[in-house]
Order: sequence, then C-alpha cells, then structure tokens
Amino acid sequence: MKVLTIALLLLSLTGSHCFAQNEDTTQSQRAVTNAPGFVYPRIDNQLRGIFRFKAPEAKKIQLDLGKKYDMVMGADSFWTITTAPLAPGFHYYFLWIDGVRVADPASVSYFGTGRWTSGIEVPTGEDFFTAKQVPHGEVRGVYYYSNTMKETRRCFVYTPPGYDADPKKRYPVLYLQHGMAEDETGWSTQGYMNFILDNLIAEGKAKPMIVVMESGNIEEAFRPKPGEDVNEARSRFGASFTPMLLNDLIPMVDKNFRTLTDRNNRAMAGLSWGGFQTFQITLNNLDKFAYIGGFSGAGMFNVQTELKTAYNGAFSDPAAFNKKVKVLFLGIGTEEGQRMKALSEGLKTAGINNVYYESKGTAHEWHTWRRCLHQFAPLLFK
Amino acid sequence: MKVLTIALLLLSLTGSHCFAQNEDTTQSQRAVTNAPGFVYPRIDNQLRGIFRFKAPEAKKIQLDLGKKYDMVMGADSFWTITTAPLAPGFHYYFLWIDGVRVADPASVSYFGTGRWTSGIEVPTGEDFFTAKQVPHGEVRGVYYYSNTMKETRRCFVYTPPGYDADPKKRYPVLYLQHGMAEDETGWSTQGYMNFILDNLIAEGKAKPMIVVMESGNIEEAFRPKPGEDVNEARSRFGASFTPMLLNDLIPMVDKNFRTLTDRNNRAMAGLSWGGFQTFQITLNNLDKFAYIGGFSGAGMFNVQTELKTAYNGAFSDPAAFNKKVKVLFLGIGTEEGQRMKALSEGLKTAGINNVYYESKGTAHEWHTWRRCLHQFAPLLFK
Repeated sequence: MKVLTIALLLLSLTGSHCFAQNEDTTQSQRAVTNAPGFVYPRIDNQLRGIFRFKAPEAKKIQLDLGKKYDMVMGADSFWTITTAPLAPGFHYYFLWIDGVRVADPASVSYFGTGRWTSGIEVPTGEDFFTAKQVPHGEVRGVYYYSNTMKETRRCFVYTPPGYDADPKKRYPVLYLQHGMAEDETGWSTQGYMNFILDNLIAEGKAKPMIVVMESGNIEEAFRPKPGEDVNEARSRFGASFTPMLLNDLIPMVDKNFRTLTDRNNRAMAGLSWGGFQTFQITLNNLDKFAYIGGFSGAGMFNVQTELKTAYNGAFSDPAAFNKKVKVLFLGIGTEEGQRMKALSEGLKTAGINNVYYESKGTAHEWHTWRRCLHQFAPLLFK
Repeated sequence: MKVLTIALLLLSLTGSHCFAQNEDTTQSQRAVTNAPGFVYPRIDNQLRGIFRFKAPEAKKIQLDLGKKYDMVMGADSFWTITTAPLAPGFHYYFLWIDGVRVADPASVSYFGTGRWTSGIEVPTGEDFFTAKQVPHGEVRGVYYYSNTMKETRRCFVYTPPGYDADPKKRYPVLYLQHGMAEDETGWSTQGYMNFILDNLIAEGKAKPMIVVMESGNIEEAFRPKPGEDVNEARSRFGASFTPMLLNDLIPMVDKNFRTLTDRNNRAMAGLSWGGFQTFQITLNNLDKFAYIGGFSGAGMFNVQTELKTAYNGAFSDPAAFNKKVKVLFLGIGTEEGQRMKALSEGLKTAGINNVYYESKGTAHEWHTWRRCLHQFAPLLFK
C-alpha cells in the first residue's frame, strides 16, 4: 500500500541531542528516566552520571544536580561530563545553557522545583518500587469542585487491586502529600507509590487502602504576591489547604469512593513541606486522623520548649495522645542531618510514642520518601 | 510557632525567568498553559503571543512555533518577541538557546514531538472542552501486563460520570489514539477529552462511554534502530500495536471494566498517525469495530485506484460496508489542505457512507482534534 494522496505531516524530529549509533552497555546503562530514544545520560558501574550532547554554538553549559558541573566541549562539538558517584535514588537536575536554566531534553520532565525539570534515577538495587507481575491498583485522575478555592481541581486517587471487583467492600484512606514546589503528580510519577502499594499488598504486608494525592496549592506557596514575604505566602497557603482538605476533599472522597470514614481508618502523611502540612492538619484535627507520617519534614516547633503548647496542646497529655494516635511515624534520610532524630527522641523522652526510621545513604530526595512509604504503609490500619 | 531546630531545605527557586511585578492584564493575558507563577508568555487582543524573559549571557535565542522567530535582547537583558497573530487552539513550541533546542521553563511541559516540549493555548472563545460544574468522569491510570510486549504498560481509561455508582451498568468503549511522537497522556492533557465527554454527556448529546488511550508504542515508531529506515521503523511499530490492542488491551479492558463487548459497542478513532492506525486496525478487523474515526489522518491508499484492494478489500462491497460500519467519520482542519475531503468524496462516489467534518481555521493541531472528538462522540453507539 503506497502513500499517495495523503501526505504525512512529518514532525521535526531533529534536535541538538544526537543519538549514538553504537551503544556500549558493558560499562554504563541509559538512565531509566531518559526520554524515549535517548542513550544519554547514562549511569556507570560506579554510579557516576555521564552526560553528553551536541551543542556547537553554546559557549558555556553547566549540569546542575544541586552541585554544579562545568561541561566540556570536545572537537566534535559534543559537550560531556562525568559526575562524581551519585547517591542511589531519584535526583532532580537541570542544565544552564549560556546562563539560561532549562530542563534537559534528554530526560523525562517532572514537575518539581516549581516547574518542569529533569530527573535522573540512579540504581538502588532494590525492587520494592518497581512494576512486578502482581495485581495492580489504579491511579485515577479525579476532578472535583472545591468550594473553598472556587475552582475545579484534579487530585489523584489510588484504588487498590480488586477495588472494582467487589462493589461492597470499603477501604481505609491515606492522604499523601508531596513536597514544596511539587504537585499531585509527584507521588505516582517520581515516587512510584502505586507500585510500592501494589507490591506490599501482594505480599500481604499492607492492608489494601485508598490513597489520595492533592496538590494542596503547594505550587503557589513559594510564589509570593508582589510585595509579599515568602513566609506570608506560606501561611496564606497553609490557610487554604486545611479547609480545602477537610471541607471539600475528604467529603468528596468519602462520597465517591467506598471508604471507611472513621478516624481509625484515616491516615495522613507527607514529605518535606507535606510533612509540615500533615502535622499542622492532623494534630489540630485528631478527631479525624489516627495515623500520622512525616517524611523528611514534620513539626515546626521546638520539642524542648514548645511541646506542651504546639498544635494547640496536642502533645500536652502523652497518655491521651498515645491512645488516640495509633502510629506517629518519623522518617528521614541519613544524609539529611539529625533534625528528625532529635524530634523523635524529644517526643519519646516526653512519653509520646513514635516510630523513627532512617533511610541509609539517601538525602532529601524521592528515594528516601519511597522507602518511608514502604516502611509506613505496613503500619497502617492494623 | 517559630521555625527552630528544623531547618527547611529551601529549593532553589531562582532562574533566568523573572517575574514581572506589575502585570498589565488590560492588553494581554497569561497563557493558560504557563507553568505556575509565570506571567509570560502572554496572548494579546489580536491573539499574538508575547514572550519575554531574562538571559544576559545568551547570544542568540529563537522561538520556534513551527515558524521561527528571532527574539531580541533589550538593554535590560530581557529577550522579547511578539509573534504574528496565532491560530486559536493549542500549539507546541520550543526555544533555541544558542543553538540548543529546549522546552521553555515558563510553560507546562507536554509529551509531544517525541520529547517533553512546551505548549501555548490561544483562546478560541469556545467552552466545549473546559471544566464546567457538571458531573466529571475519571481518567484512570491503569497498569497491565502486555504479553505481546513482555512488559507492564500504562494506559488511561476514562470512565464516565456515575460509573462507580451503579455497579451493574455496562458501557460501550471508544479506543482513542493520539498522534505520532505523542503518548497516552495526550488526549487527556492537551486534548481535554475528559471535559469534552463530561460536557457532552451532561447535555445529553453523547452516550456515557468508556474511552481507552494507549501509547501504542508510537514514541518508538519514529526512532529508527541503527541503520534502519524510518519507514521500516514505522512498519515495525505497526506490527506490534495490532496484536497488543487485540490480544492484550481489549481483553484487559473487557475483563476489568464493565464494558459492552460486541462490535456495535466498540469504536476506534485516532488523530494523525493514530488515524492511520485506526484504519489499519479497524478495517482489517471489522468483526470487532462498528465505528471508525480518522482525525487529520486516515487511509494510506489512493482512493481512486486502490479502493477495492485496500485493507484486504474492506471497501470492495459498499453495501456490505455501509451495513457493517455504523459511522465512518473523517475530520480535518481547514488549514491542513484537501486530502481528507478528497478521501471523503472518493469514498462517497464509490458508495461508501462517511461523515466529513472540517474544523474552521485550525491546522494540524490539538484544537482540530478536540473539535473532531466533539463532533464524533455524539454519533457513537446510537
């Protein structure tokens, strides 16, 4: 069958990122976070990132992985850099091309750092977050009207494997928040929360549960209005998410999904800024939540001096708190410092039960939070 | 409550795209496709795009909207350009910064042109594809194992409003394909297919239906293997999607969703390359599909000379074809040329019923396809 009268409109598929014709996979592998067809960036056996692309007209290119690397142009106009060994897990990065910060066209783009940016997955040797041949839950884009925000919003709702098969069964719910400058896509895209839950459920280690992810307006929190202080912007944000969650989101979820609606079947957790949100919302509303998780972020107060007054006195009666809160989970990466450990120990000293978890060798990045979820989910709704 | 022992890890929120402090909204508006907080690009009253950002070190910046525009740097180091009036609808674009093709950090990133790229929505004055206060369907990320591809894949499944409320009701299914170098995210992200369906269903103009969107490996089709011709790559691709759709995807959907499984309740449509796929798959499998839609792409054959032989003779008996195929829909934008009209007229001359639709003033872009879906969906399953 020949192509005749109908001319295909061919897309421009050329660009400055060229494809290697011969790919040496013995010393290094494509990053799994690469856009389709891109053979760079690669990860070598020492977990170093290797970046390479053609840009004959650029004068200066930097790779920014938190640490900045000056890329070097060869005689063939290819710019290259091999990084120091990278921590296992997921790292945001971007390029500076003659002073302009851009996403790397060779990478999938993720919403993080307040914009679409690049990510590189450094192999961890773990498979708890990968797609296995087990029953899979769904990640549903759910659209609802928020009366608080006066707009139609999208959240994501994970429904566990078999949700549709038994229309009578009801499930507990975890509200799960991403970090600052991320959005509702983070946990299912960078975090693989669905595969983590699928695998735990298949192994019988976690109870089947519904998980709800909302942007919570975090993306607006770091964009002060003209003349506004960044802390003002954050408090403005904080002021809108609590009523949105309590008055719009939870009622919508309880109406449209087969949930168990009592506090013993409702958890909330979040990473980084989402952990602060979680503390703020749950500790001020303990009639609604019985499980609390802070991943690399939790508790904006001094555990030594403010424990009795923080969160309207939520911690003031340890025995009552311990009876009410089934699990208080505090997790952090070992490369993030001692702040969460100090909080955990301060709470324990005061008689407040909590579970402390350290993710070995990881920093303030998604692999820490994947591991936190993997530790936290089995503790829920037991 | 003071921030004390717990230091917030602040993300780097600086970049080369600066924010205007005073936003003049009388002459122009932010594009709705902007990333959060970005006040440029803007659209003015004449539908011209206005782009502006700071890049003191760059030597040459071009805006590429299909047509390339040279941006101009002012004394303040801001680069600016005002385009010619743009066609209403959604346009992919990108930037060339000193010769490097990149996505604009000021835009949401979309998967199109084989990578994550930028898009700008030019107001159309229409609201059929916008979020209204009507019952909303869900767009579910569904994970399944494809035996054909030997991998776990994601597709999106739109379930209509009320799907979960009546666990006995069954629905017809539309398989809906995006174009070349796009993926399964296209129809719900660039295309707003869910709002189009929600609105049509709320108005009583379309029957509630399930819609399934799969990448169909299109992203691999335009990346030839080393030494392989692009047409070889395409045929290689075509060879994998048909069995994947027929043997893996449709059985999975019919197993996991409450579908009506006879051919009179199954439709397939696609845009551009997805239209070619649709013809290829449906016309060779008319025992499985009764509704066919090609949006700006359909039928790789010469309607004058190959009508009797194309698709194994599917058109060779017009009366039988007309009885079998309830709707054959051919849609295109008026700015795309006459090829679809010629196909429609050639088919009509030969006695093959078809519905021809022209989207006024639009080209080979998403607004054409949104309008096509808006025209096509009401014809289905009646």
